[in-house]
Amino acid sequence: MAVYTDISEIELGEFLGRYEIGELLSYKGIAEGVENSNFLLHTTSGAYILTLYEKRVNPNDLPFFLGLMQHLNPKGIRCPLPVPCRDGTVIGHLAGRPAAIITFLEGMWVRRPTVDHCREVGKALAAMHLAGRDFELHRANSLSIDAWRPLWTRARDRADEVEPGLAAEVESDLDMLEARWRRDLPQGVIHADLFNDNVFFLGKNLSGLIDFYFACTDTLAYDVATCLNAWCFEKDNASFNLTKGMAMLSAYTAVRPLSPAEAEALPLLAHGSAMRFMLTRLYDWLNTPAGSLVVKKYPIEYLRRMRFHRQVKSASEYGLVLP
Amino acid sequence: MAVYTDISEIELGEFLGRYEIGELLSYKGIAEGVENSNFLLHTTSGAYILTLYEKRVNPNDLPFFLGLMQHLNPKGIRCPLPVPCRDGTVIGHLAGRPAAIITFLEGMWVRRPTVDHCREVGKALAAMHLAGRDFELHRANSLSIDAWRPLWTRARDRADEVEPGLAAEVESDLDMLEARWRRDLPQGVIHADLFNDNVFFLGKNLSGLIDFYFACTDTLAYDVATCLNAWCFEKDNASFNLTKGMAMLSAYTAVRPLSPAEAEALPLLAHGSAMRFMLTRLYDWLNTPAGSLVVKKYPIEYLRRMRFHRQVKSASEYGLVLP
Repeated sequence: MAVYTDISEIELGEFLGRYEIGELLSYKGIAEGVENSNFLLHTTSGAYILTLYEKRVNPNDLPFFLGLMQHLNPKGIRCPLPVPCRDGTVIGHLAGRPAAIITFLEGMWVRRPTVDHCREVGKALAAMHLAGRDFELHRANSLSIDAWRPLWTRARDRADEVEPGLAAEVESDLDMLEARWRRDLPQGVIHADLFNDNVFFLGKNLSGLIDFYFACTDTLAYDVATCLNAWCFEKDNASFNLTKGMAMLSAYTAVRPLSPAEAEALPLLAHGSAMRFMLTRLYDWLNTPAGSLVVKKYPIEYLRRMRFHRQVKSASEYGLVLP
Repeated sequence: MAVYTDISEIELGEFLGRYEIGELLSYKGIAEGVENSNFLLHTTSGAYILTLYEKRVNPNDLPFFLGLMQHLNPKGIRCPLPVPCRDGTVIGHLAGRPAAIITFLEGMWVRRPTVDHCREVGKALAAMHLAGRDFELHRANSLSIDAWRPLWTRARDRADEVEPGLAAEVESDLDMLEARWRRDLPQGVIHADLFNDNVFFLGKNLSGLIDFYFACTDTLAYDVATCLNAWCFEKDNASFNLTKGMAMLSAYTAVRPLSPAEAEALPLLAHGSAMRFMLTRLYDWLNTPAGSLVVKKYPIEYLRRMRFHRQVKSASEYGLVLP
């Protein structure tokens, strides 16, 4: 749920005057994306998304995010394409905020993913990793393991309000993750947030990846681990669906094989990824004011995943076929 | 800001299976409409709005609302047209709620209306009043003067929290309105909520009237009075823009002349209409829980209008050219 900023038809008209996308027919604030305000535009040339970047996005990161979509799209990765205005730039300014127009992708995100959807996601993720190899910009992951301890420090004292015992459990896992984290695995552009609301399907076919606003340069297998967390758990958030995991991983590795080191690290990476989402959810849970339009997500769903990963001995338990 | 209910692609697919509107390509929850959840659908045959009717809409009123659009649209009133499913009905059921699909109207609602917009609204309102004359269904106005006293009783004790002195001021006006209200003026179908967010324009041309979910059978000139309140005040909510009022009223009367009795009653009706919106806003202001997605509108904007109308002696002060 978003749309934090309304825009008038006059300021929007002036803004669009710098683009060649036809006459504006309508614009609707849409309830997608958590961080930004998004509008679906209809013009005489088609449908577009207008995004106003709100406070949580650093404007200095926009060339990376938008440049990445411009890099991936022509390589056959189905993702929105930023629309340049007449002077060639893709980042404008509207209602006091950085703003961009991207092409609209038809498709629906699936509320209840199936094995087929997981397979498609694995394939698309690997293709994105390959297509990103020669992307020239670099962006550090601002929510990598180095960010977890500071986040935790700001949430720890109240963690047991959310679930008794949470503080001790996280403290112990965080110590372990920091001690054992692998920084020597293949790096590249990762999406870093490829949850089911960021993948569109038309029927069983993946029609697009969206929302590259957490994308960064980091461990490729960590992106795989995040997708396992996002797509392959049962509704109880505690049981892993091995069939979905196998579908995702076999589709991924058919396009981009995992090295033995990546395979070995997968349980650790999945555990860390679950920690990352637990921590940001916990922080938001404790700090989002009542009445905010931001929908708070329950952190304990990711604590349950952490508990699962803690007892995993080998990536084969996610469905990876080891050589 | 709406979208109270999310729907899954599976239940939506099943629902759409009963319609002949092509294949679903995308659906987005949109931030329009205060009372209901609205989704913009793209299908292979075009764009549609799917509305889920939330608690504040009485399902028994839906045949009136949807039937009215079906009545007005073929008479040249630009408004959405409900889409029947294969069995001919226009009211379905989705996610535990009554639901309907209507055609999507291109156009933008104007955040800053000009004189030209007011003229177009006057013309369209009169045309709607004429086109509604032979609509066979009847719906009492659930927010007519008979509803104001009960609303007030539930808000009075806390009214001065919002503005000191409000209680006495409303009490006095309400006594006067009840004593002098006119029930003998021409009746018909009124929109009853024709604010600027319910009228779409493409450039200077009105492209559609939307949101008929307050429509009812009531005094036609009361609808005119509501439009004067909605469109013709300055941003201070206290000064009436005579140029806008003249444009609206001359355009209205060119299509549907006001009788001398209607003209004489216009200040009273405008005062009453301002009271109605002040009261519902006041009630919501006092009773909407913090954290609700419903955006509370400030009631005092309509108190300012009430004060203006209180001192009006004749409809000529709104710009009506008296015979």
